[in-house]
Amino acid sequence: MQPIISVVGKSEGGKTTLLERLIAELKRRGRKVAIIKHTHHDFEIDEVGKDSWRFSQAGGDVVTVSSPCRFAIFKKTEQDLDPQELARFIVGDYDLILTEGFMRSDTLKIEVHRKEVSAELQCSPQQLLAVVTDEPLAVDVPQFSKDDVEKIVDLIENKVLAQREGEDVELFINDTYVPIKPFVSEFMSRTLIGMVSALKGIKEVKNLSISLRKKA
Amino acid sequence: MQPIISVVGKSEGGKTTLLERLIAELKRRGRKVAIIKHTHHDFEIDEVGKDSWRFSQAGGDVVTVSSPCRFAIFKKTEQDLDPQELARFIVGDYDLILTEGFMRSDTLKIEVHRKEVSAELQCSPQQLLAVVTDEPLAVDVPQFSKDDVEKIVDLIENKVLAQREGEDVELFINDTYVPIKPFVSEFMSRTLIGMVSALKGIKEVKNLSISLRKKA
Repeated sequence: MQPIISVVGKSEGGKTTLLERLIAELKRRGRKVAIIKHTHHDFEIDEVGKDSWRFSQAGGDVVTVSSPCRFAIFKKTEQDLDPQELARFIVGDYDLILTEGFMRSDTLKIEVHRKEVSAELQCSPQQLLAVVTDEPLAVDVPQFSKDDVEKIVDLIENKVLAQREGEDVELFINDTYVPIKPFVSEFMSRTLIGMVSALKGIKEVKNLSISLRKKA
Repeated sequence: MQPIISVVGKSEGGKTTLLERLIAELKRRGRKVAIIKHTHHDFEIDEVGKDSWRFSQAGGDVVTVSSPCRFAIFKKTEQDLDPQELARFIVGDYDLILTEGFMRSDTLKIEVHRKEVSAELQCSPQQLLAVVTDEPLAVDVPQFSKDDVEKIVDLIENKVLAQREGEDVELFINDTYVPIKPFVSEFMSRTLIGMVSALKGIKEVKNLSISLRKKA
């Protein structure tokens, strides 16, 4: 699974602006970035085209609208999903997933702190990759000002992205993410690449995905 | 891959209304349905929350907004995608994908015909599962009126959904869908289920997905 870093902190602390700047800097360095924003409010899908709303109302479990320059997928859920669960729907070759919010999820965090907004940090130091703060804090975590965007991205590159090497295998069974150890991951990866390389027309395998379902 | 049926025909012929009614009838029969609408116009993602627009502008390759009752994923593309390519992003256990539009894609079609709107059919009879028409047509394809929703769904059930048995394996290599024969599909399916059944805590496998990518 791609590494996930959650930008968290109280409302009005500057999370969205920090994220925008991190995205732009990561892009400048050639990274592919996926973003997941958490919101407590429901949002309307109406505006994307009355038809998508009509299909959803009629009972469509998932509704996609596709144009020549983008597509949008809308899916109903019965509860808040974790970034790890949402990551499954973000098919593609991303270096990093950045989220806004998801305070309670088990992800690495960058907390945005402003003394006007909050007296203390929301996260424990163990969860924190970094703090972006407008005052010095007595915690043993790298601290940055909101303008230290390049330095924060350096930290992400060195502490998070540099750790990823070799092949990356992601496994879901019965719709649940199953973490696997490096040895198992390598075994599966080699078996799968070997298996598909026997198929006609397959030369180099850069990425591969297989899904299967048993029918009722 | 799930079966895909495209509802096509000239504008103002009644495609959206027919689709709404088909979705509702399929749902009533306990089917899970995904919908893909094709549009030639770009659509604005602005309204779903200014932040998703900001993240996209900043360079986010894919932007997701998640609330407790739904999520939306927005992805930029460089060209129109086929329903088969879009289907990959619709993760989940659907019985059927219905599309509006995608006239030129290699999918089964239901054409909606109105004599006021068009003199002749847009599809060749070989592509057509059915025609929904307001006048009798001299083609050897099942013909229905727009109110024959139950009969059309009967046809979908009998001609399309009843064909699906056993396991269903979908394979993508280097982001391209690779069709596989039933024998290969069964071989892969058994190998994969055998492989993961050795993992701790795995009992019955109802569905499974594995993706891997080689890192640069």
